[in-house]
Amino acid sequence: MLGLRQPEIYGRATLADVQTLAERAGREHGLAIEFRQSNLEGELITWVQQCRGRAAGIVINPAGLTHTSVALLDALLAAELPVVEVHLTNIHRREAFRQTSVTGKAATGLIAGLGPRGYVLALEAMAGLIADAKGAS
Amino acid sequence: MLGLRQPEIYGRATLADVQTLAERAGREHGLAIEFRQSNLEGELITWVQQCRGRAAGIVINPAGLTHTSVALLDALLAAELPVVEVHLTNIHRREAFRQTSVTGKAATGLIAGLGPRGYVLALEAMAGLIADAKGAS
Amino acid sequence: MLGLRQPEIYGRATLADVQTLAERAGREHGLAIEFRQSNLEGELITWVQQCRGRAAGIVINPAGLTHTSVALLDALLAAELPVVEVHLTNIHRREAFRQTSVTGKAATGLIAGLGPRGYVLALEAMAGLIADAKGAS
Amino acid sequence: MLGLRQPEIYGRATLADVQTLAERAGREHGLAIEFRQSNLEGELITWVQQCRGRAAGIVINPAGLTHTSVALLDALLAAELPVVEVHLTNIHRREAFRQTSVTGKAATGLIAGLGPRGYVLALEAMAGLIADAKGAS
Amino acid sequence: MLGLRQPEIYGRATLADVQTLAERAGREHGLAIEFRQSNLEGELITWVQQCRGRAAGIVINPAGLTHTSVALLDALLAAELPVVEVHLTNIHRREAFRQTSVTGKAATGLIAGLGPRGYVLALEAMAGLIADAKGAS
Amino acid sequence: MLGLRQPEIYGRATLADVQTLAERAGREHGLAIEFRQSNLEGELITWVQQCRGRAAGIVINPAGLTHTSVALLDALLAAELPVVEVHLTNIHRREAFRQTSVTGKAATGLIAGLGPRGYVLALEAMAGLIADAKGAS
Amino acid sequence: MLGLRQPEIYGRATLADVQTLAERAGREHGLAIEFRQSNLEGELITWVQQCRGRAAGIVINPAGLTHTSVALLDALLAAELPVVEVHLTNIHRREAFRQTSVTGKAATGLIAGLGPRGYVLALEAMAGLIADAKGAS
Amino acid sequence: MLGLRQPEIYGRATLADVQTLAERAGREHGLAIEFRQSNLEGELITWVQQCRGRAAGIVINPAGLTHTSVALLDALLAAELPVVEVHLTNIHRREAFRQTSVTGKAATGLIAGLGPRGYVLALEAMAGLIADAKGAS
Amino acid sequence: MLGLRQPEIYGRATLADVQTLAERAGREHGLAIEFRQSNLEGELITWVQQCRGRAAGIVINPAGLTHTSVALLDALLAAELPVVEVHLTNIHRREAFRQTSVTGKAATGLIAGLGPRGYVLALEAMAGLIADAKGAS
Amino acid sequence: MLGLRQPEIYGRATLADVQTLAERAGREHGLAIEFRQSNLEGELITWVQQCRGRAAGIVINPAGLTHTSVALLDALLAAELPVVEVHLTNIHRREAFRQTSVTGKAATGLIAGLGPRGYVLALEAMAGLIADAKGAS
Amino acid sequence: MLGLRQPEIYGRATLADVQTLAERAGREHGLAIEFRQSNLEGELITWVQQCRGRAAGIVINPAGLTHTSVALLDALLAAELPVVEVHLTNIHRREAFRQTSVTGKAATGLIAGLGPRGYVLALEAMAGLIADAKGAS
Amino acid sequence: MLGLRQPEIYGRATLADVQTLAERAGREHGLAIEFRQSNLEGELITWVQQCRGRAAGIVINPAGLTHTSVALLDALLAAELPVVEVHLTNIHRREAFRQTSVTGKAATGLIAGLGPRGYVLALEAMAGLIADAKGAS
Repeated sequence: MLGLRQPEIYGRATLADVQTLAERAGREHGLAIEFRQSNLEGELITWVQQCRGRAAGIVINPAGLTHTSVALLDALLAAELPVVEVHLTNIHRREAFRQTSVTGKAATGLIAGLGPRGYVLALEAMAGLIADAKGAS
Repeated sequence: MLGLRQPEIYGRATLADVQTLAERAGREHGLAIEFRQSNLEGELITWVQQCRGRAAGIVINPAGLTHTSVALLDALLAAELPVVEVHLTNIHRREAFRQTSVTGKAATGLIAGLGPRGYVLALEAMAGLIADAKGAS
Repeated sequence: MLGLRQPEIYGRATLADVQTLAERAGREHGLAIEFRQSNLEGELITWVQQCRGRAAGIVINPAGLTHTSVALLDALLAAELPVVEVHLTNIHRREAFRQTSVTGKAATGLIAGLGPRGYVLALEAMAGLIADAKGAS
Repeated sequence: MLGLRQPEIYGRATLADVQTLAERAGREHGLAIEFRQSNLEGELITWVQQCRGRAAGIVINPAGLTHTSVALLDALLAAELPVVEVHLTNIHRREAFRQTSVTGKAATGLIAGLGPRGYVLALEAMAGLIADAKGAS
Repeated sequence: MLGLRQPEIYGRATLADVQTLAERAGREHGLAIEFRQSNLEGELITWVQQCRGRAAGIVINPAGLTHTSVALLDALLAAELPVVEVHLTNIHRREAFRQTSVTGKAATGLIAGLGPRGYVLALEAMAGLIADAKGAS
Repeated sequence: MLGLRQPEIYGRATLADVQTLAERAGREHGLAIEFRQSNLEGELITWVQQCRGRAAGIVINPAGLTHTSVALLDALLAAELPVVEVHLTNIHRREAFRQTSVTGKAATGLIAGLGPRGYVLALEAMAGLIADAKGAS
Repeated sequence: MLGLRQPEIYGRATLADVQTLAERAGREHGLAIEFRQSNLEGELITWVQQCRGRAAGIVINPAGLTHTSVALLDALLAAELPVVEVHLTNIHRREAFRQTSVTGKAATGLIAGLGPRGYVLALEAMAGLIADAKGAS
Repeated sequence: MLGLRQPEIYGRATLADVQTLAERAGREHGLAIEFRQSNLEGELITWVQQCRGRAAGIVINPAGLTHTSVALLDALLAAELPVVEVHLTNIHRREAFRQTSVTGKAATGLIAGLGPRGYVLALEAMAGLIADAKGAS
Repeated sequence: MLGLRQPEIYGRATLADVQTLAERAGREHGLAIEFRQSNLEGELITWVQQCRGRAAGIVINPAGLTHTSVALLDALLAAELPVVEVHLTNIHRREAFRQTSVTGKAATGLIAGLGPRGYVLALEAMAGLIADAKGAS
Repeated sequence: MLGLRQPEIYGRATLADVQTLAERAGREHGLAIEFRQSNLEGELITWVQQCRGRAAGIVINPAGLTHTSVALLDALLAAELPVVEVHLTNIHRREAFRQTSVTGKAATGLIAGLGPRGYVLALEAMAGLIADAKGAS
Repeated sequence: MLGLRQPEIYGRATLADVQTLAERAGREHGLAIEFRQSNLEGELITWVQQCRGRAAGIVINPAGLTHTSVALLDALLAAELPVVEVHLTNIHRREAFRQTSVTGKAATGLIAGLGPRGYVLALEAMAGLIADAKGAS
Repeated sequence: MLGLRQPEIYGRATLADVQTLAERAGREHGLAIEFRQSNLEGELITWVQQCRGRAAGIVINPAGLTHTSVALLDALLAAELPVVEVHLTNIHRREAFRQTSVTGKAATGLIAGLGPRGYVLALEAMAGLIADAKGAS
């Protein structure tokens, strides 16, 4: 899991709380979670590239990069995996420049405005997407 | 629950399947579900208005009205309830005119691109929002 | 009178209060008032169509439809009557999407931002417009 | 046939005249015509939805909804039938907001600016489209 | 009262007629009217600044400045008084550059398209706003 | 008839087929057809200019010039004749730059998306427009 | 003549030179010239208003006000006289915000980019416009 | 002189009248005039290219090409001569798409809205520009 | 120093306080300050024009004119002096129409969001710019 | 090879030099070159249409038509051949209206900003594209 | 202090000179300076995050990131400290894409166009802001 | 050489193949190649900065950064070297947000849509640019 940024301004849960929540949700759905955070766009891109052929899916909160990073969009498209994009806040209620999602063009699904609970829902959604993909193959 | 439209183009689940899924999810989270569908914007608005002071929250898929209906937005704002907006498809991967959400400005949270499963996640999110609201009061 | 919507968010007067105000103002100016409210755009359009050749003028608050409804605009244009558009709030102080009026292109006059008192002023204006029309014919 | 609105402002033929014209044209081309008019967007949507699997094609004049209704567009797309959109006036000679067609994105063909005669031409075009579809299957 | 400009193109009433109308309306509502007209944006701004702490409200027709003057907007905001903006014509039926109101962002209410009668209605509205303000304090 | 371009990408009918169709339709409606095609915008303009006072109407498919040629628009406006613009495809379903019609501002009517059959319908429409014009004079 | 501003940046001729040029051109064409310059938009507006019914035409260089002043546009429209707008430079070769002319919407003719000679041409044009107006009455 | 198009819609003078006017004005200013008209953008471009090193200046009315032709703009820029662009009508009073001038970016001066007299003024201006150029060398 | 407007809404310092601050800062940097304020755009323009060849630099707060006045921009460009533009508030945190600076295109430097202290910093900057200019000549 | 325009403004090489360069590059890569230049958009379109089924590829410099010609775009799309578009200058460093390429939507590849050498590179690229196409069939 | 980039193109002072200037200014105002430079957006973000609760304020020149980085904006907003944004050049005199500041939405103040001296002024401003903050608490 | 990203989605050649191709092309043209790839925008910027005064030119494929990175643009401008920008795909045939090039404003030339062969052509172009630069000095 990538890009869990600035939980302190968007809710009271700490990064560690979110990691605990995510790992518990992973266990419930039988998913092994790799939890990562970086301020470096290039490092996020490298992690996304490493997922290709190695991970079953990507849950990502691209934070400020959501609205601007074509490079991260291209990495997600190249990964060819189910992607769930999570935002702590509802981007449609914020400033105009936050109402578009560049990276969202590579996402299967999007969960926004539900705080840290959004990660739990995203993992539940991912478990379903992985099960669907197995059923289809 | 309002506005469950055109499931036949956006996935194989029927409206009845979605209702079954939603009711089962409601029972799991201890929520009584009222499931409604209408093609009439005005009827949706009336239902939303009736929720005020009577329902604990609204899960809504405004379909095509998402992108155009200021009237539905105003009804949702007037309801003063937690609102979760659901879209079967990820609007950021579709035509430009589908990438904005007018009604989303009244939503607490947004779940998109996850098919009928999105309703189950929305009810789970709603249960959490209702619990948070009770905890806060 | 059509489209008196959501007075609860835009002031403390109830719909009944507004109706009382409007009827009293009508009596003062010698106008018989027909007071109507609907959430259905199509019903509003039908009422507007019925005014043609039957009513002397239309005072309308199209609420959220103001900014989007070309169909209501066309009905008002087809009525060929004096029209006064009323808004409880001043649309120029609100969100950008509320600062344009589609239906206003069919209005003779516009009164905004003056709360329920706006209806009284609109009826006073309408009385004048009707007197002008009689004077001109 | 849906949505024949406001012929009085756009030509001298009455709705009944248009219906007569359309039915005569239908008989000439061996088509059984179901002629409908409504001011309610939701009712139009319901009728369009009922066409799926029951009608051979849809001739529609969405009037003011042409420029705004994503909901009607989605209904027409879901119908999966040949659609001919008719406008009494040439939308490219009118105000800027009338020069785009949202519903036209679901149309096979478009006939505009030819008055009530446009319905006759649309039915002739529809007869050809139905014959083509039979030839192809 | 400021900015009563060019009545000759927008109706047959002269500036003196409008002043007479306004003063009579003022007397009816118990308001002392100070009636002013200037072509100088800076003089209008000075008058508006002088109203602060001296006048109970401002009725203004900013004419062509409506659409362009951030300086007049700032003066009106700084006055911290009820403001009613009057336009002789309905700006939504005119050229695109006249359909926005910069100064309107400082107005409590807006009356447009009702000719010189708009000033009478504006004074009536102002009397109400002043009474409301007294009631609230 | 001017500007019949590139039928090979927009349908299987050849230019000769379209000419045959058009001439047959002309005979049916008692119209003498002059059938022309050119890649030169200036030659199209000259032909349109020659129609003035010599032809009873113009059926034109301006192809790529539809979206860009103010010069052709001016020639069509100067012809002062009924004009029917034909497009083989429905421009509202294509790229954004094809969704506007510059030349359409000079057209009486528009027929799009109906393939070579569009020319037949256009001639039928033209016969009606010519008959209307005779009836009116 | 109004608004002759900043000749020092736009050519070597001084304001006095321009006045001499203009007066000589006036004498050649039998026109009495009143030559005025002001930095005050409101003073320009007053002068334009005074021309109504007193002058035969207006030659104006609105300088920076060209691109912004709706108030000056309205004064020129209200003057109901032939107006020739002069610019020392060709506005189409300058910054984007100088490529539109608000005041030009009230002008009969426009002469730009020809330096102080533009005033001589403008007076020659004005003499012709006045002669035309006399011929027509 | 190039591009004298459609004088019939923009004034009563014929092309021959304009030629006579232009030639007389040329003689007055000691200029030999080559008067040309074409509907073919490419022919206009060739003529402009031939002016380079052979003519002293270009007076051009690009008509509809004014607003669209980058190719004609490039030819005019490549000519490296004084250019005066003439329009029979004032483009700032017409439709939005006529209010920009692409070719005007290559012009020294611009004369618009003064009818056929504009050509006379343009030749007078050109005589001055040629004299200036001689004085400077 | 020009254009010190509306300090009452943008901070608690009075105009006199700002003048005192500015004069003290002037003395510290060996600059003679001329302190001026006007609501009249034309008077500001005249003062700016008078600076040319008489003052060593201009510190200006154009307030609302910042966003609209091409005339003031042209005066500042014509002054050919170092210019420091001061804003009491940070324009990038305010409404969209306040985030552009027309007059700023003529400024050497810009200081915003630092309240009355901005004038002190601007004078310090101006002292440096004047010293640089002397060093360069 | 089409559209080699105005080399005199974009570099010192003459059209003949470019032809020599292109023919030498053609010989090196075993390609027979047909070298053509025209100012007539329609002639360029005819040549492009003649390439279909006769040429192996098209190297084109559409000059000013690049940014405007939908008609040339359609001809290139209809040719169904590899297309390399060449620009002597880098369009991304020029005016905004030169930064889009309409015709480029039909190109396989694009080479810009490299002067006449661009044609040599384009022929080298074309040789590769033709070899690829043979390898694939 | 972060983000001091590319001083070589924007003035003759080296990075070391700027550091010396900044440190001297810091000492004058009793501020301990931490001077940092990085090309990595993520490293800048990390440094900004580390300032929270540790530094009294941030002086930052975000260079090219100014116009694009929502991620850096979010980091600055999360720091909840006084921020002064410095630009060596006046962004309002540069290309359009440099005239907006994304990161400026998190700044208290902005200093632009004053070269390396801008850092000295920024530190002086920061000393004042820190003193204000102490006075307020 | 910088920024060779994601060859797997844009063609079958691996990064190693591209490096081999580039090095062979370098040897043919007598150029020593330094081949680099990074996902970190800041590292790319540092490499570009290091080229200044050390390398003879830069061939760069900025991938997703092409459309967004003002910081990379500024680094390329500061390098003051010939720059050839390479794209594996033709950006004019892709999504709208990929049709602009921010970094291209710093490029001498641009090669797009020709796959890995584009790097070979870019090195050939670079050899020419370096030879030109030597010839000019």
